[in-house]
Amino acid sequence: MGMSEEEKRKIYREAGADALFVEADHLRRYLTGFYSTDGYVVLNGEGCFFFADPRYFEAAEKELRGSDITVVAGARKEALELVKDCKTLGVPYPFVTLSSAEDLRKAGFTLTDCMPALKKAMEVKTERELSLIQKACDVAEDALLNLLPEIKEGMTESEVAALLEYKMRQLGASGTSFETIVAFGANSSVPHHETGETKLKFGDVVLIDYGCKVEGYCSDCTRTFLFGDDGAHEEFKKVYEEVLKAHELVKTNVKAGMTGKEADEVARGSLRQAGLAEYFTHSLGHGIGLQIHEYPTLSPRGEEVLQDGMVFSDEPGVYLAGKFGVRIEDSCCMKGGKVHSFMHKTERKLIIL
Amino acid sequence: MGMSEEEKRKIYREAGADALFVEADHLRRYLTGFYSTDGYVVLNGEGCFFFADPRYFEAAEKELRGSDITVVAGARKEALELVKDCKTLGVPYPFVTLSSAEDLRKAGFTLTDCMPALKKAMEVKTERELSLIQKACDVAEDALLNLLPEIKEGMTESEVAALLEYKMRQLGASGTSFETIVAFGANSSVPHHETGETKLKFGDVVLIDYGCKVEGYCSDCTRTFLFGDDGAHEEFKKVYEEVLKAHELVKTNVKAGMTGKEADEVARGSLRQAGLAEYFTHSLGHGIGLQIHEYPTLSPRGEEVLQDGMVFSDEPGVYLAGKFGVRIEDSCCMKGGKVHSFMHKTERKLIIL
Repeated sequence: MGMSEEEKRKIYREAGADALFVEADHLRRYLTGFYSTDGYVVLNGEGCFFFADPRYFEAAEKELRGSDITVVAGARKEALELVKDCKTLGVPYPFVTLSSAEDLRKAGFTLTDCMPALKKAMEVKTERELSLIQKACDVAEDALLNLLPEIKEGMTESEVAALLEYKMRQLGASGTSFETIVAFGANSSVPHHETGETKLKFGDVVLIDYGCKVEGYCSDCTRTFLFGDDGAHEEFKKVYEEVLKAHELVKTNVKAGMTGKEADEVARGSLRQAGLAEYFTHSLGHGIGLQIHEYPTLSPRGEEVLQDGMVFSDEPGVYLAGKFGVRIEDSCCMKGGKVHSFMHKTERKLIIL
Repeated sequence: MGMSEEEKRKIYREAGADALFVEADHLRRYLTGFYSTDGYVVLNGEGCFFFADPRYFEAAEKELRGSDITVVAGARKEALELVKDCKTLGVPYPFVTLSSAEDLRKAGFTLTDCMPALKKAMEVKTERELSLIQKACDVAEDALLNLLPEIKEGMTESEVAALLEYKMRQLGASGTSFETIVAFGANSSVPHHETGETKLKFGDVVLIDYGCKVEGYCSDCTRTFLFGDDGAHEEFKKVYEEVLKAHELVKTNVKAGMTGKEADEVARGSLRQAGLAEYFTHSLGHGIGLQIHEYPTLSPRGEEVLQDGMVFSDEPGVYLAGKFGVRIEDSCCMKGGKVHSFMHKTERKLIIL
């Protein structure tokens, strides 16, 4: 089950095109609620049409029966046939390829960007979407809690990642929402470390950035641990406290009505006071939905105004090259004007494994 | 380590642009050999430049030191600065968004499609690429062999998929190459069944379509089994034999110099003789590389000529709606003019679990 008919009509009206022509996987899923790796959606004044090829037709027909969506057997050709009398086609510029766009222009259509209309709808989640994101977060947290007692000295980053992913799958995830990052020791100072064959040693920092998908919706979480305290972690602990402080400040001080830039500054300003801002080398957060990076953007360039129903990450981090990194991340939503975390099970304060 | 300097020069010359401007993940990885989720590659007459943001700069600098690739700190702005005196920019039309293209056109660039040049290079794999695909296939097959004895009555499709994925991860895969399809019973008649909560019963058909990634390169494999023979599978067994025959005919009869269309017809013709062609509702195969669906295409519309070094799937299938489906798939390459399977460990003939 996808979004309501009324929401689709609103998107159609706001796009200001004769029809919307959508082929990107996640947008197709957003509009229809149906999972497929191929297909086309046309949204016009008559309604919503999903063109499914033989691989998906049977399943789509069955799942969407009784909905406001008409399932049509076919692919691009058939979808274009339906819009042939349209002059202006709305396509989502950030999610349509230049190949497809050139093809549509050659066929005589004038293209207009329907992404602003889609984005406006997508960035404010429905109750159903929020509950799926909550489920993806619950699965992620439960999996981490199951994982922690099984982390042993000598395991590789890849082994830990594999085990965590398996636990998420067992708990009901369809897969990961991005490639799991497990970083031991100094590897944690590389914000997007590629999980590898490094073995866990006593006293290592352990950074785990991971998430899963439930019915297409993503979760995103980062925790940083110490694998045993060898007594040589004074600097790490100080940094950890500052990152945690920045992370929590976002939850208490960011409000609806603030811009992404102002939200980012809540964390960045706190780290600046601690003399750590220059080591916070990425944005505070990103929207989360059917994609792991969505709207809004919480960064020094985030102009968007935060509002109820938006879902985003709160993930300040500090990286001291060659030494260690700390990142603490929750998936959160704006509700009643305030930030609410989806994460209620795992600790944010430092855990020594 | 990515491709050679000479190969890059060849792509640059063939693209016929002042510079290539590449942002798609897999193409960036193809050109640099470096894994990142963001970044820009510029290929011009001077060489190859990889623009890495702070998340990746340190790692890229380290990994690409001594290569022909210059790592530059920066992102889109910095990459555009380097090409500012260019008139014509080569961008890969199927992998550049309309947003990015419009942005480049507004900046005064004339765009030209560099994908034909990239495709020509990418579809003929280097020895290194072939060995990574071989590894991805080995991992996939070993994982399946480990999985089979653990499949028990009452397990759900999702549980079987989770276990298989975990085994691939343990054996060295970085993740799946696409969402694992596990289909029990009549679900197997849906070619792209969404793995779900159906439980395994004695006598069920079990179709598993899966693959993994090793250093970015994909494997793709499908096997169809019977979970116990309840004696009611005469039709299934007949169909299985015909699909297997079509699958094997491709290996023996498809040769370099044939088109994708002719290759497809080898399997389709065989199934036609058995009266089953109308139930073979998809293409025979697709290219495999850094993406799970690449070039060439082996379908009734595949005009491309198959040649040595190409990697593709051989996956005929027959689907009897509501009853069962059979698909048998190997990842293969063309070598010495003939089709060689990467799969040497698992059986193609019918196994009763």
